[in-house]
Order: sequence, then C-alpha cells, then structure tokens
Amino acid sequence: QPRAVAVVGASARDGSLGGALLAHLFDGGFTGPVYAVHPSATPIRGQTAYATVRAIGQPVDLALIAVPAAAVEAAVADCAAAGVRGVVVVSAGFAEAGAAGRERQQRLVETVRAAGMRLVGPNCFGVLNSDAAFSLNATIAPLRVAPGPVAMLSQSGALGFSVLARCARLGIGLSSFVSVGNKADVSGNDLLAYWNEDARTRVVLLYLESFGNPRKFARVAPEVSRRVPIVVVKAARSVAGTRVAGEHSAALANLDIAVDALLAQAGVIRTDTIAELLEVASLLASQPIPPGTRVGVVTNAGGPAVLFADAAEAAGLTLPSAIAGDNPLDLFAAQPDDYAAAMSAIGARPAIDAVVAIYATPLPAEAAAFAAAIARGAAAAPAAKPVLAVFMTTEEHAERLSALHAGARGRLPVYEFPESAARALGAAARYAQWRARPAGAALELDAFARQAVRAVVDRVLSGSAAAVVLAAADVTAILGAAGITVAMAERVAPRDVAAAAERLGYPLAMKAVASGLVHRREAGAVLLGLADAAAVEDAVAVLCRRIPALTALELQRQIADGVEVLVGVTTDPTFGPLLACRIDAPAGAAPRRAAVPLPPVSEIDAAAMLDGLPPGLDRQALIDVIRRVSALVDVLPELQELVLEPIKVLPEGSGAVVVGASLRLARD
Amino acid sequence: QPRAVAVVGASARDGSLGGALLAHLFDGGFTGPVYAVHPSATPIRGQTAYATVRAIGQPVDLALIAVPAAAVEAAVADCAAAGVRGVVVVSAGFAEAGAAGRERQQRLVETVRAAGMRLVGPNCFGVLNSDAAFSLNATIAPLRVAPGPVAMLSQSGALGFSVLARCARLGIGLSSFVSVGNKADVSGNDLLAYWNEDARTRVVLLYLESFGNPRKFARVAPEVSRRVPIVVVKAARSVAGTRVAGEHSAALANLDIAVDALLAQAGVIRTDTIAELLEVASLLASQPIPPGTRVGVVTNAGGPAVLFADAAEAAGLTLPSAIAGDNPLDLFAAQPDDYAAAMSAIGARPAIDAVVAIYATPLPAEAAAFAAAIARGAAAAPAAKPVLAVFMTTEEHAERLSALHAGARGRLPVYEFPESAARALGAAARYAQWRARPAGAALELDAFARQAVRAVVDRVLSGSAAAVVLAAADVTAILGAAGITVAMAERVAPRDVAAAAERLGYPLAMKAVASGLVHRREAGAVLLGLADAAAVEDAVAVLCRRIPALTALELQRQIADGVEVLVGVTTDPTFGPLLACRIDAPAGAAPRRAAVPLPPVSEIDAAAMLDGLPPGLDRQALIDVIRRVSALVDVLPELQELVLEPIKVLPEGSGAVVVGASLRLARD
Repeated sequence: QPRAVAVVGASARDGSLGGALLAHLFDGGFTGPVYAVHPSATPIRGQTAYATVRAIGQPVDLALIAVPAAAVEAAVADCAAAGVRGVVVVSAGFAEAGAAGRERQQRLVETVRAAGMRLVGPNCFGVLNSDAAFSLNATIAPLRVAPGPVAMLSQSGALGFSVLARCARLGIGLSSFVSVGNKADVSGNDLLAYWNEDARTRVVLLYLESFGNPRKFARVAPEVSRRVPIVVVKAARSVAGTRVAGEHSAALANLDIAVDALLAQAGVIRTDTIAELLEVASLLASQPIPPGTRVGVVTNAGGPAVLFADAAEAAGLTLPSAIAGDNPLDLFAAQPDDYAAAMSAIGARPAIDAVVAIYATPLPAEAAAFAAAIARGAAAAPAAKPVLAVFMTTEEHAERLSALHAGARGRLPVYEFPESAARALGAAARYAQWRARPAGAALELDAFARQAVRAVVDRVLSGSAAAVVLAAADVTAILGAAGITVAMAERVAPRDVAAAAERLGYPLAMKAVASGLVHRREAGAVLLGLADAAAVEDAVAVLCRRIPALTALELQRQIADGVEVLVGVTTDPTFGPLLACRIDAPAGAAPRRAAVPLPPVSEIDAAAMLDGLPPGLDRQALIDVIRRVSALVDVLPELQELVLEPIKVLPEGSGAVVVGASLRLARD
Repeated sequence: QPRAVAVVGASARDGSLGGALLAHLFDGGFTGPVYAVHPSATPIRGQTAYATVRAIGQPVDLALIAVPAAAVEAAVADCAAAGVRGVVVVSAGFAEAGAAGRERQQRLVETVRAAGMRLVGPNCFGVLNSDAAFSLNATIAPLRVAPGPVAMLSQSGALGFSVLARCARLGIGLSSFVSVGNKADVSGNDLLAYWNEDARTRVVLLYLESFGNPRKFARVAPEVSRRVPIVVVKAARSVAGTRVAGEHSAALANLDIAVDALLAQAGVIRTDTIAELLEVASLLASQPIPPGTRVGVVTNAGGPAVLFADAAEAAGLTLPSAIAGDNPLDLFAAQPDDYAAAMSAIGARPAIDAVVAIYATPLPAEAAAFAAAIARGAAAAPAAKPVLAVFMTTEEHAERLSALHAGARGRLPVYEFPESAARALGAAARYAQWRARPAGAALELDAFARQAVRAVVDRVLSGSAAAVVLAAADVTAILGAAGITVAMAERVAPRDVAAAAERLGYPLAMKAVASGLVHRREAGAVLLGLADAAAVEDAVAVLCRRIPALTALELQRQIADGVEVLVGVTTDPTFGPLLACRIDAPAGAAPRRAAVPLPPVSEIDAAAMLDGLPPGLDRQALIDVIRRVSALVDVLPELQELVLEPIKVLPEGSGAVVVGASLRLARD
C-alpha cells in the first residue's frame, strides 16, 4: 500500500524492464507520485528524473529496482538512506546464477535487513495491488486486472501473468499479485500471513516450485485456511520437473508424498494443473463454500449430465435422488423460465448443497435467453449454496459469460465442459470438510520430560561424532519420558528380573538364555502368561532349576493379539522430520501406508492417518502414541530416525503397546 | 455420400427439427438436390414440397426423418418404397421412452432391414460429411465445419456439437460426424469399419455411453487402430453416471476396469475428459505419431517448463539431457530467430522424438513475431517428429493460433498450458508404442479338439437345466482337449494308479485314502518324489501293505516351487467372457491383478497381462495357458466360470503347471 513509488533504472526505452515498470505504473493509474531514477537524470516521458532516490527529496515508500545485478546493492543502499520501506528487485543475476550470485544475494539481504526494509525478489516480475486507493501495477506486464477477492503468489513470473490473463478473461477479480522470484526476504509464508489479515482477499492462489520453510508453512497455512481457501499448484514434483527447476536434490521429487501430506494437513487445495487451479478459483471467487457434498443438477442434455455424474462421483460428490426427488432434473426442450424455476426448486431442497445448471444448445440464438434464465435461477437459490453453470454452445466461451451475473450472488462460475465443474466443486467440498473439522491441538512435553530426554541424549552423544544407534534401555527411557510405554524384550540377570517386570508390565513371557540352548520351547525354557510379580518370582526359580547353564533371562510383555502398526520418523533435509505410519493388513492384502504429516501433529491429524485401521481397535491409544512421538520430535533436533515397530493395537479400551523400538541420533 | 436428400417432416417454422434440417442442408451448401416432404405439400422456402418421398419422382439416396414417433414407421415405409438407401431418424420416442418405444424401435429396424436400407438413430441429431463433393450438414445444428481428417461419433448429440464447435475454434478440420442416437441399426462398430475404409479420415473420436457389442468392438477396433488412432471418452463409468445414463444395470459401472482393458487391448486412446479428448485430437489431426517418448523442449520461461516436465514424466515421456544436450533449451530474453533456430536444432537431434516449444510473454506486442518464429522452427524440424506449441500470452488464445501454420506441416497444435501438451503427447506416444508392437495372434482349437470338448459338454449338460459344476475328470478332459495339462489330485483305485500316473506326469506324490486315517503323514501314508512308473508301482505295494484299510489312492503331480498364479474366466451379461489373472506376490505384499482382457487373447495381449510376473520364471508357458484358455472360451458358449488355481509357474524352461481347476457350465 505505497503512497509513493520510485523506479530505479527507469528508462524511456521500449523493451527495457525499467521502462516497462514506469509505463505500467502510469498506465495502471497509480494514485500516488511516481519518481524516475536514473544515473543520467535526463527527463523521461517529459518527467524529471533523479540521479538517486535520495535526490528526490520526497518520501518514497516503495522502490522498484531494475538495474544490472552489480549495481543493485548500491541502489538498495541509496533506498535505505532515503528511508524507503520496501524494495522490489526485478533484476536477475542472483542466487539463480551460481555461487557469485548467491553471495551477492546474501549481501543484498543483509543490507535490507540492516535498514529494516523488506525485499521482494530479486529475479522477480513485480507486485500488483488492485485496491482503487492505490491501483498499483508495479510489474513488467501491461496487466489489466479487475479488482476482486483473489490474491496470487507465483514463483514463476511468466506463469503468474498467464494465470492473471486467464482470470481477466474469466471475469475473476484480483486483490493482489506477487511474483516472489528468489524469495530472498519476503517468502510465501510472509505473504500468507499478510493475506490472512487482508480484508480484500478471500481466495489465495499459489504457484510454488519449492518450500523455503515447510515447517513454518505447516504452522501458518492451516491458520490461513481456516479463514480463506488456499489453492496451490506445487510443481517440480517429478524427477524431471525437479531437474528443470534447477533444484539440486533429485530426492525432492520423492518427497511429493510429503508435500501432499503437508498440504492436506493444512487444508490447502492442491490441483494437478494450472487449468484446474483456475477452475477452482473461478468457483471460490464468487460462490460460497458448499455446506456439503450433495449436488442438484438441472440439464437439458443427457451426455453432459452423464459426464458430470461420473466426474462428480470421482470427486467425492453425490447426486442424491432417492431423498431429493428427480436429480438430474431433465429439462429437454424446456423454455428459459423452466430453467430458472427448476434451479430455484432444486436449490431449495434441504438434501441439496449445491446447484449445477447444465445447458447445451446447438442453436446459439437461444443461448442468451437461457443464460439470463440461469442467472435468475441462481439468484433465487439459497445464498449459502454455490451455483455453477456448464454452458455448451457453438459460440465462443467468453461471450457466454457476460450474461451470467446472478443478482446479489454476482458472477457465476461458468465451465465449458461438465467435468471441470465437478472437479472444482469436489475440491471446494473437500475444503469445506477440512474447515468443518475441529482444529485439534498438538501435545508438548513439559519441562521435566524435556529435561529427562536431554539428559539421556547428552550422555549418549557425548564424545560421539557420528550417528549413534541407542541401546534398548536408553530408547525405553527417552520414550518413557515422552509418555510412551515400551514392551520391548529385555535381557537381564535373574536378580534384576523383578525390576524389569515392573518396567514392562504384565502379562509377561520369560525365556531362559543359556549357552548352547537352542530349542528353548522344547527344553521348557519358555514360560508364558506371568500375570504378576509373584508369578514372575516363581518363574525365575523354575527356570534356574530347569536350565542349570542359565546366564540371563529375557523378559517381554506378552501381547495376545491386535493389529500390528508401525510409526516412524525420518528426517529430510528440506522438510525436517516426517512422521509416517503403516498398518498391517490381513494376510494376502497389502499393508496400508498412511500419508506422511509434518509435526506438530494434532489428534485430528493423527486420526486422519489411521483411516486404514480396522474398527473395534483402540484407535485412541494409537492416536496418543502418535501425538507423543510428535511432541518428542519437537524437542529432539538430533533425531535421525525413530521406528516404533511393531505397535500392537489391542481391542478398544485395551491400549496400544509398543513392542519394538529403535532410535538413531546424531549431533547436527 | 448421398447425391440427393429428402427431409421428411420439413417445415418453414423456426425451431422445428424439420425446419432446422432443411435450413442447414441449404446453408451448408449441399451439392445435390434437397426435397422437402410434408403431408400438406405446401411450398416451403419458396420450394415445392411433396406429400410423400414417392411423390418426388426422382432418386433419393438419403432421407432425414423428423416427424412424430408414431408417424416414423409410415415415413420409413414410404422411403423404402421410393428406393431410398439410408434414413436418419431424428425423431425421439423410441427405445429411450419405455416399453412401447422399444417395440416401435424394433418394428422400425425390421422395416429398414426388410427393405435393405440402413438407419442412423432414432433419437439422434443427424450426420455430417464435410467432403466438398457433398458438403452435407444433415444435422439440427447450424455447424460451420472446416474439412479435415477427424471423424467423430457421439452417443450424445448435444455433446457432439459442443466438441465440433471447439474443433472449429481450435482449427481442427473434420471429415464426418455422426450422432448415433439409439444405435438401432448403424452401430459404433459399423462406423469404425466405415472410417477404416475412408481415405479422408485419419483420426476417429468417440463419445460412448455404452457398448452395444463389446466382443465385436474387440475385433474391429484393433484393426482400425492399426491404421488410424481412435480417441474415446467412455462415460457412464461410475454408479452415478450409469444411473444418469439410464443404464438399468448398475453393475456396468463396476465393469469400467473391463472397458479399460478392452480399450487398451484395442490400442484405443482413452481420455478422462472431453477437454483431454480435444487436446489429443488437436495433436493427432495435424502432427505425425511420435516415433518415441523422448521430448526436446525449447522455452523462454522456467515455470511452464517445470510444469511440462512434471506432466511429461507422469505421461510416460522423458526429457533426455545427458545424451541429447541441453534440454530444455533455455531461451530467456531470446529473439524470434533464436527460437526458430533452437527448435530446428533440438528437432534434428537423433535422441529426440518430438519437439515442444513453450513461449510465455507478458508483452502481447511481441507475440506475433514469436508465433511466426515458432512456425518457422516447426517447419524446419524433421517431418516424422511432431511439434507442439505452448503459447502463453496475456491475449486471447484463439488469436495466437492464427500465426502458427508451419509450412508443409500445416496447423500446429497450440496449448494454453503446458500440462495439456504433455498429456496429449504422452497419449500419442503410448498409441505409437501399441501400434509398433507385433499384432500377435489368438489360438483356435482345431476340429478334433472342438469335438472332444463338445462331447464332454453335451454329456454333462444333457438333461440338466441348471448350471453344472463339472467333476474333476471332466474338467481335466476339457482342458486337455484345449492343450492344457492339469496336475490335479486324482483319487483312483490301486489298480488304476498306473494309468493315472501317466496322465498326471512325474514326479508324483501318492497318499493312501482309508476310513479313519487322519494323520496320514505320521502314519506313513504319504510317499513323495515318485519319479517314474516303477517308483509308482513300488509305492502302491508299500502303501497297500502299510495301510490295510486302504480304499483308494490319491495321486498328485508334485510341484517343488514356483510362483502361484490364478487364471480365471467369468461371464458378464454385456461383455461376455472376461479373462483375468492374479499373480501372487511374496509374503506381505499384495497380489498383482492383471487387467481383464476379452477373448480372443493373442500372445501379445497375454504377455501384457503378465507384467507383474517376477523374472526368471517360465513366462512363455503361462502365456500359452492363457492363449489356450482364450481358444477354449471361444468354443464354449455355455461357460459360466472357469478358474485355474493355482497355476504353479516354474523357472524358465520348466513350464507352468495347472494344479487346480474348476469349471461351471450352463445351457443358455
């Protein structure tokens, strides 16, 4: 929201970046003063030009920098001296251009941070704010953007512009646009936080190729998603895409499942393509979030309705008919007023959450009257239910749009083919379901527990340079501090059995350990079902008598049955710790792998990981284990890998017992 | 290719079907005489009208019927009497309208068949032939279609028209269009066969909601696919879609996997949406089939190239760089001539099979020069390699197209977003792979084998009304006639052991059967590894001595190891027999289920089912079993279910042994 803007590197030359920035500020109708800055200080477009920003002698809020990379530092220093608050560096030649560029970028960031300024870019295409109080087009493109509720961030300027152009054609209004370039200072997370406070923004679109700080995104994005939907295309998801994006770690592509989990956990709508991003944006920009998944369809053509039904089912929507009357309502050979009446009627049904009007005509002359009728029908539908139109004529798509403004409801989202409408509505309904679920809370270890964990870790890692695989007792101690009880096998001397038994809990299995003892069961060296301390004491006596060569006893909590589950944490260089879960299935079937969420994991996130858990088991106990693992991860930056396997999940009310666990740590 | 057309039910009234048909014949510039037929015989549009087709007194090749359903039969009889060769019945009120309509349709079909005419429809929107020698628009839509290589069949008239309209906007030319309606006579299979002979048609598009005769499709479509690509949207694939399509069997939706297999087997390109159908059509209409999957990319923007790479990898394409030099070629800030040169250079590389030019600009003024340069670059690329353009500007899509005609190569397919280009090229490359594979051949049983099968079947079913589960010996006999050896357990009297052993093959396991004999192994009643007839004779003697109460002997081919596979045939009311295959996986992993092909299954189809088979096994022997099952199915219309389970697939060269088999038959 700058009151005055300077263009550093301004030029009258066509095709220069500085010239484009200056021209678009004027053409876009920026409401404040625009100052041209150029070393030559010769007038540009008949306007005074200044040699430096300091030379302007007036307050400047925002400076756009379009000078050669080598001159950017000096320009930014000039801005800092002139009291500029924010800079947008369009110039390239920074981190994207090798080691020297990375150093240059680092110095640039230090300069702006020291001056208390914020920086967008470098290597970006600019920023835009459509608010009539500013009308700021500070980009290198001659954009004509209608004001509206959609904000966009693009990690590719060219792609962002093409999305904005399509928005303009679809009648989707924008609040602001930021081409973030190298994200040296202002990040996606910063912008999400900004848009969360921006009353003009009701939908956020993101084109991302990388996450600068995925753990921060995991905290910020869900907060934003509770207020406004975020729709994202996350590219560089394949090995090929990662290479083309210039990401050096091909491993990133393998983490697309982690990205998926991160976005799902945060309530972010992920689309596979830019076209789908626009389809969803078109819906969310003007219509309410659907209160449910039940769609009422009005159509005058069979084929498009069949395609809609197929795509709707695939997108998780339903077309109720038993409780909601005829659906789709078939309006073959109907008149325009029939359309309006049918939409209004189907929209009024309590068992319907959204209305889709499909209209196909080979007679373009008819189209206008039906478009108007669909707009009337949409205006009459309850305000809380979204209305979408699929309008198929032999004429241009853009022309059909103009008629479809439905009173207070505003612009209707119009699709050329039914599958797009189903896909967009399905995405919106899934978002609504996410938003309707309770927020949940992650656990945190208290100071006492943290101290207990640190004590073990510091001892184990003291004097050790490399990674350390912890001894069973240390693993048990650390997990115990986090409130996770482990029923691992312990090998102890006969005199230590009583204490170990108390640690492990009952019932217990006890096995004799002796040199040369192989077939333990046949030798009577295994005793099962020891229910209490007395039984354990008796068992020690029995085994010592039976197996004279006995050197130790192996104790293990005896778990009758239950489904086996694995909960594990691995650490990724980009994403940090990732928490995964595998649920064993009956023989013959493949185990269910849950998505990989990033800590902190709330009880709601944990429950979402356990969709594959058969009913009747102690789901709550397993959720508790997962939350405690998440809390432990938070205080254990040295964690490289933690595997709880198997966890026996017992029938409801009987708990979930960690039977095996391993932990690998390393100093950073 | 009619020389003269009559419109029965012609009318001057706007909005009437007959009026529309008449108007579009004239407006489309049909090259022959058009006769209006109406009972009143009052002139229409200043033209003579006739009371009947017979009254015309001139030869009429094609009659378009647009009279009320009840009057259609008489009109068609009139056409038959007048020597009309083909009728297109636009009128509704037939099979789609209940029992009376179904009967009316049946009588209609009998009438046309008796007269030796062919019928398109009823309940259809007409036919179109763009050939300049005819210029026939015999549809109810005022279509303006450019002549070209694309033929389309649509089971939904409205949807077909909207596809044609989009084709016109994309510059895709059409050879012909048929709205098939209820497919009472002329079917999709008929049209495929027709287009296979039509020199003007080089791409076939299908919108289908049902298969009238999937087994015929399975024979016709692969033949057509070898000459021209077929692209299909098969709707009514979900439970909801099936209901909306008015298909009475909801089970159809469950068969979508069979549809998938049918289309894959036939080399048909299936797309999920109409938008994708058009994307693929746009490519195939003007460009050659790619010789391989390796794509060379030229781009001036990073983001779009990343999106392309992601989508390309997902579509089975590769962007080779190690052997093919820089790829994508980054043309940031390039001039138009650089683009043309880069495209020509990357297209010339031997390691590249297709060229994609991505161009993004925020400066629309530049776009025309770059479009022209891309066209030059495409013209210079080798003729055998397809060239696609992704053209992203802030202007309208349609405008960008005009510049992109690449010399002898003609129109370039232009996409607004990179994912579409990748998806379309991937589909074309998969089709090319299908077409490059050998055709393969199905087995057929010879007369002797057929007779042997029939003899068993007729005996088994004689006097039996219901389904019969066959006895093991009958199953073995039928499978044996088809050349499939079964190593099932056989229970025989001691005196019959020698013959049974020869039937089963060696090595054999032999078990004694005796009343009260439970723990056979412990009782010494099981002998393994009998390698030849002598060993078998000895074993009989041993067991008779050991087990005095012995009543019979159980013989089974002894299979040491090998992977277990199931091959089964079930019979679906619509699709007829479906052949499925399941390959067991190592413990813990899920078994691999192969797709379900329809017989006849060639060795190539069978091999494609066995992707999940681990290496080192006798794949060829299993392929042989599958082909023999396919041949057996062909002569066994009474088959309800055949299950070969398990089939032990042994190491390479050692065969595949059917250890268990069951067969259920029923008279039709």
